[in-house]
Amino acid sequence: MKLPKRVEIVEVGPRDGLQNEKDLIATGDKIELINRLSRTGLKHIEITSFVNPRWIPQLADSAQVATTIDRLPGVTYSALVPNLKGYEQSVSAQIDTIVVFLSASESHSRKNINKSIAEAEVVLKEVTTRAIADGKRVRCYISTVFGCPYEGDVDPEVTVRLTEEILGWGAYQVAISDTTGVANPQQVQDVLQRLYDRGIRADQLALHVHDTRGTALANILAALQMGITTFDSSIGGLGGCPYAPGATGNVATDDLNYLLQSMGIETGVDSDKLFDASCFMQHTLAKKLPSRYFQSQLAACSEGSKSNANAT
Amino acid sequence: MKLPKRVEIVEVGPRDGLQNEKDLIATGDKIELINRLSRTGLKHIEITSFVNPRWIPQLADSAQVATTIDRLPGVTYSALVPNLKGYEQSVSAQIDTIVVFLSASESHSRKNINKSIAEAEVVLKEVTTRAIADGKRVRCYISTVFGCPYEGDVDPEVTVRLTEEILGWGAYQVAISDTTGVANPQQVQDVLQRLYDRGIRADQLALHVHDTRGTALANILAALQMGITTFDSSIGGLGGCPYAPGATGNVATDDLNYLLQSMGIETGVDSDKLFDASCFMQHTLAKKLPSRYFQSQLAACSEGSKSNANAT
Repeated sequence: MKLPKRVEIVEVGPRDGLQNEKDLIATGDKIELINRLSRTGLKHIEITSFVNPRWIPQLADSAQVATTIDRLPGVTYSALVPNLKGYEQSVSAQIDTIVVFLSASESHSRKNINKSIAEAEVVLKEVTTRAIADGKRVRCYISTVFGCPYEGDVDPEVTVRLTEEILGWGAYQVAISDTTGVANPQQVQDVLQRLYDRGIRADQLALHVHDTRGTALANILAALQMGITTFDSSIGGLGGCPYAPGATGNVATDDLNYLLQSMGIETGVDSDKLFDASCFMQHTLAKKLPSRYFQSQLAACSEGSKSNANAT
Repeated sequence: MKLPKRVEIVEVGPRDGLQNEKDLIATGDKIELINRLSRTGLKHIEITSFVNPRWIPQLADSAQVATTIDRLPGVTYSALVPNLKGYEQSVSAQIDTIVVFLSASESHSRKNINKSIAEAEVVLKEVTTRAIADGKRVRCYISTVFGCPYEGDVDPEVTVRLTEEILGWGAYQVAISDTTGVANPQQVQDVLQRLYDRGIRADQLALHVHDTRGTALANILAALQMGITTFDSSIGGLGGCPYAPGATGNVATDDLNYLLQSMGIETGVDSDKLFDASCFMQHTLAKKLPSRYFQSQLAACSEGSKSNANAT
């Protein structure tokens, strides 16, 4: 199996994970989480979102989080930015890498941000060109690439068109996103092949998957086989799915890091320190995090190995 | 991606799943579960184990289960058999396909069944040759192929040697088993390649994975790419891991069936009926089953889709 030697994990738990948590988490706990994540060896952490607090009250403390966390050299601390106003706030909060987003599905775009895809493109171009002019770096999510909770199938050529456009505006990377965890490995490879066919390089792409149906790591394996070297994930599998309350959210950083390191792929992430960050988060939320690897580690250190007749 | 057109799922929940459940489940509930599983379109269900009830009290009712369930035509109802005594009990209970097992790790073999690998081979040969002579079919698990909770690394050549030997005695299939969920996709392909190199065919092999670390479907994808067409799984992800209490058990039939069908691979399994079987089991156990796909279905039907700002 041909696989990359090294992968960058983009930790999105403090933003994509927390925005799906209903109970408000103390700002101090968010800062502590991000500081712990910084110490794991992760080189990119999406720390918050500069969105109107009316929409996501959980992230209303974005400026305070961004200006209080320890900034380790070599680590990118990015933030989601929905529009120019959010962009300006992010700049004031010392954010150098912004993350913008739009959807590949018309219905999802309208329901998610109350804009058509075309309207979202206008905003995104405005924010991106302004940020690039200011010397910032821009990353972009394209949501619902593999399926939409309202429309079902999504035309992969929309993703191809949007990706070319966004990279043309100066974004350094587009994260192809399986917002509701419906993708399958064949689909992942198909979309990536379409993008490669247009001359887009693997390092201009990332895969952002949710583990709603348990298929996240299989989809990541399919992308690894296509040369993708950037993957988004969330500490402990923090978060959920807004379209299926009770279901799992982003793929867990813990599971992803285990998969990669077990195949000899370097991530630079210290699994003991990652375990420490997940322990902190599980304790803070006072509920079981979805990460299977984390739960197996926790079980092993709390009870240790034991025998059982006829284990197969 | 080159994938098989059709896959057979071997449902092992009533045995491998239930043997890890501490609270005794009523015989009637086990029978109801198996009857529901029979109606899903699954063609092979491992229904129980004829093991000394001292070791696994949960399966002490094996004869009653085996003789009371509805037997649908075309469905194989197999049972685990540790020795000749168990074999004779299984025959009395109208079992035509027996499942035997041994370990690729010396330490695991001794801790699991109190026998060395060599001693286990003697018993296995005795049971297998007797069953074949009686006109029964024999399937075999090789446990801890990808790693052992006591020894760590396991020599893949032990698995190759044992597989050749067991097929030589007349078993129709060997299930290469990741007992503690430590395998990675590269390792899966490596072991399969070693087996193919010795002339063993894909249809003589199955993959039996546990989802302890979340990697089960990635490992299954790797095996699908190598032409494997038989996979073991457990309804709802029923069961656990005896070596890491609290961790996940077998890969969930629900997740596996979703992965396969989403890629157009036929399984013959009706996902609505599978959902029904998982609902029954979750209700019976009165605890959340580990299957991510099942939980997402349950969430969708209990609350329906809803929107959320800035979902990526």
